[in-house]
Amino acid sequence: MKIFLYGIRPDEAEYLKQWNALNPDIETDYTDQIFTDETVDLSKGYNGVVLLQTQPYTRTALQKLHDFGVSKISVRNVGLDGFDFKDLRDLGFSLTSVPVYSPNAIAEHTTSLILRLLRRVPEFDKKFANADFRWFPTIGEEINGKTVGIVGTGHIGSVVARLMMAFGAKVVAYDIKPNPYLENLGIYVDSLDEVLKQANIITLHTPLAKRDIHMIDEAAFAKMKDGVIFINAARGGLVDTDALIKALDSGKVGGAGLDVLESENDVFQKKFDKISDVKDPQFQALLNRDNVIMTPHTAFYTTTAVHNMVFDSLNDNVKMLTGKAPKYPVDISEN
Amino acid sequence: MKIFLYGIRPDEAEYLKQWNALNPDIETDYTDQIFTDETVDLSKGYNGVVLLQTQPYTRTALQKLHDFGVSKISVRNVGLDGFDFKDLRDLGFSLTSVPVYSPNAIAEHTTSLILRLLRRVPEFDKKFANADFRWFPTIGEEINGKTVGIVGTGHIGSVVARLMMAFGAKVVAYDIKPNPYLENLGIYVDSLDEVLKQANIITLHTPLAKRDIHMIDEAAFAKMKDGVIFINAARGGLVDTDALIKALDSGKVGGAGLDVLESENDVFQKKFDKISDVKDPQFQALLNRDNVIMTPHTAFYTTTAVHNMVFDSLNDNVKMLTGKAPKYPVDISEN
Repeated sequence: MKIFLYGIRPDEAEYLKQWNALNPDIETDYTDQIFTDETVDLSKGYNGVVLLQTQPYTRTALQKLHDFGVSKISVRNVGLDGFDFKDLRDLGFSLTSVPVYSPNAIAEHTTSLILRLLRRVPEFDKKFANADFRWFPTIGEEINGKTVGIVGTGHIGSVVARLMMAFGAKVVAYDIKPNPYLENLGIYVDSLDEVLKQANIITLHTPLAKRDIHMIDEAAFAKMKDGVIFINAARGGLVDTDALIKALDSGKVGGAGLDVLESENDVFQKKFDKISDVKDPQFQALLNRDNVIMTPHTAFYTTTAVHNMVFDSLNDNVKMLTGKAPKYPVDISEN
Repeated sequence: MKIFLYGIRPDEAEYLKQWNALNPDIETDYTDQIFTDETVDLSKGYNGVVLLQTQPYTRTALQKLHDFGVSKISVRNVGLDGFDFKDLRDLGFSLTSVPVYSPNAIAEHTTSLILRLLRRVPEFDKKFANADFRWFPTIGEEINGKTVGIVGTGHIGSVVARLMMAFGAKVVAYDIKPNPYLENLGIYVDSLDEVLKQANIITLHTPLAKRDIHMIDEAAFAKMKDGVIFINAARGGLVDTDALIKALDSGKVGGAGLDVLESENDVFQKKFDKISDVKDPQFQALLNRDNVIMTPHTAFYTTTAVHNMVFDSLNDNVKMLTGKAPKYPVDISEN
C-alpha cells in the first residue's frame, strides 16, 4: 500500500518518520509542494493521498487523480472550503479530515490575542524598544468581568467558553446547534445579534459554510458595542474585511486579533523581501495599527496539533484503503 | 480632615477625582513625585498620607512626617519591602496596604507571558516585521497537558492555579501556608524543590520576605527541568538574576517572562533616550533574547486595579484617621 503526501513541512516530516516507524508495511513519499494541476502527477502509482493547503483543489487536478486510480483523499486539517464537493461526488472520491487535531491550540491562541489586545502589548512593545518604561498612559483591561461573545461552540469554541469562564468573564454564545453541556451552563443567547449586542469581546469559531460568507459585515459591526475587541482565528471569509477596516477607523472596533484574512492566500505562508512588497490593500490597511494584531494563520501551530494532523490523516487514509470505517469521514453529499 | 497623596499618575488622578466626588468632606491634594527626604515637606499640615513607590521609604523622611504630626500611612499597593518596620514602630506609625487590588490583573498578565513564550511570539513578531509569514520552524507548545508549578498560592497564585487548571495543565503548588480550598484539589507538593523538579512552567507569586531573597538561585535552577519556562511577576529580589542569566545561556531555562527585576528601580518607570543608555548590566544581558520577555512592572496595571488601589487606600486612611478599623491593616510588629 502506497500513500503520497502533499505540502509536507519539515516539522511534519518528523512526525511522518515516527508514523512510518509504527507502520512499516505502508510505503509513503511526500513533497513540500501543494496539490495543483502541476504537481498532481507526483501521486501516480499511489493508492491514497494526504493533503493540506488553503488554496483550492482544482477540478482538473482531481480529475487527473481519479484517472490515476486514486479515490481516497485525507486532508490533515479541518478546513474543507478548498473543495467543491460536487467535484468529489462526480469523481467518486471518499474524503476524511482531521476536525479535532487540537482545539486547545486555537483556543489558547485566541486567549493570547485577547490578552495582548486588552493589555495593549503592541504599544508597550513599542515603548520598550524606545527605552520608555513608564506605565502611563498605557493602562490595560482585564478579561475578568467582561462579557465575551462566542460565535460557534464546536470543539474549539467550547474550549474558549471554558477558558473565558475560568477568567471570570460572562460568556454569551450562539450556535445553530447548541452543545448540551454548555446549554446546561446557560450561556446561549437566541441569536447572533444578541451576541453582537452584549459582548465586550467577540470571537468567531465557526467553519466557513457558504451561507456564512461575510457573516460579520457592516450591519453586524454596527450592532456591536463601541470599542469591542474582535477576534477571528477561524476563517477569513467570515468577515467583510473592508467593513472591519471601516469599523477600526471609526473606533467602533477597539481592537482586532486576526489569525486569518480573506486574502491570506496571497500573503500568509509566503516570504517577501519587505513588508511593503505585500500588495494586498486590506493587509496594508490593517498593518501598523496599535490595536490590530495579525498572526499568519498560526493559531493551530503547536507540536500537539501537528502530531495529530499527520497521524490521524494517515491512519484514516489507511482505514479507507483497507475498507475499514475511518475515524473522521466527511459527508460530501451536499455543499 | 486632609490627606496628601504621593506619586500620583494622571490615571490615578482620575480615580482620585471620582473618590473626591463621593467624599466631599475630605480635602486631598497630591503630587506626582514620590515620597523622599526632599518631598516629605509637602505633607506638612495634612493628617494622613497615601503612598506608592518601589524605592525605599527613608528613616529621615519618616522622622519628618512624624514631626509634622502625621501617624497614618496608607500605601496603594501590596509591596511593603520599601519599609523598615522598625522605623514605623519607633515613630509610632499605623500602616495599611492594598493587598488585593486585583489578583486577576497579575494572574492574567502571568498567563499572557506564558502563552507568548510557549507560542514564540517574539520570534513570530520579528518574522512578521521582516515580511516572513511562514510557520516553520517556529512551532509552539500548549499549556494544555503541561505541568505548571506555582510558588505561593495567596490571592494571586490561587487565581493562576484556577486558570492553569482550566487550560488543562497539571498544577503543582507550594506554599508555607496552603489554601484549604486548593488543598482539597490535591495540587500541593511537600516542598519548593518538588515544584522545581516536576514543572514545565514555574511561576512565582510570593511576597519578598527577607528569608526569600534569592529563593531562586543557582541551586534552584539546577533542580529544574531542562527548557523550563520561568515567570516572575512577583518581586525581582526573589531571583538571583545572574543565576537566571547563566541558566538562559546554558539552555536550562527555555524561556523567561519577567515583569520585575532585581535592579528595576534604576530602569522601570523611567524614560531613556535609547535602550543602550540603560546602564544596568543584568537588564542588558536579558535584552534581545528571543526567549525572554520583559515587561516594566505592568502586570498589575489595569483600570480595575488602579481604581481599587486609589479607593481602598483612601478609605483605609480615612478609617484610621476617624478611629475606625481599617480594612487592610498591616502588622508591623516584626520584620
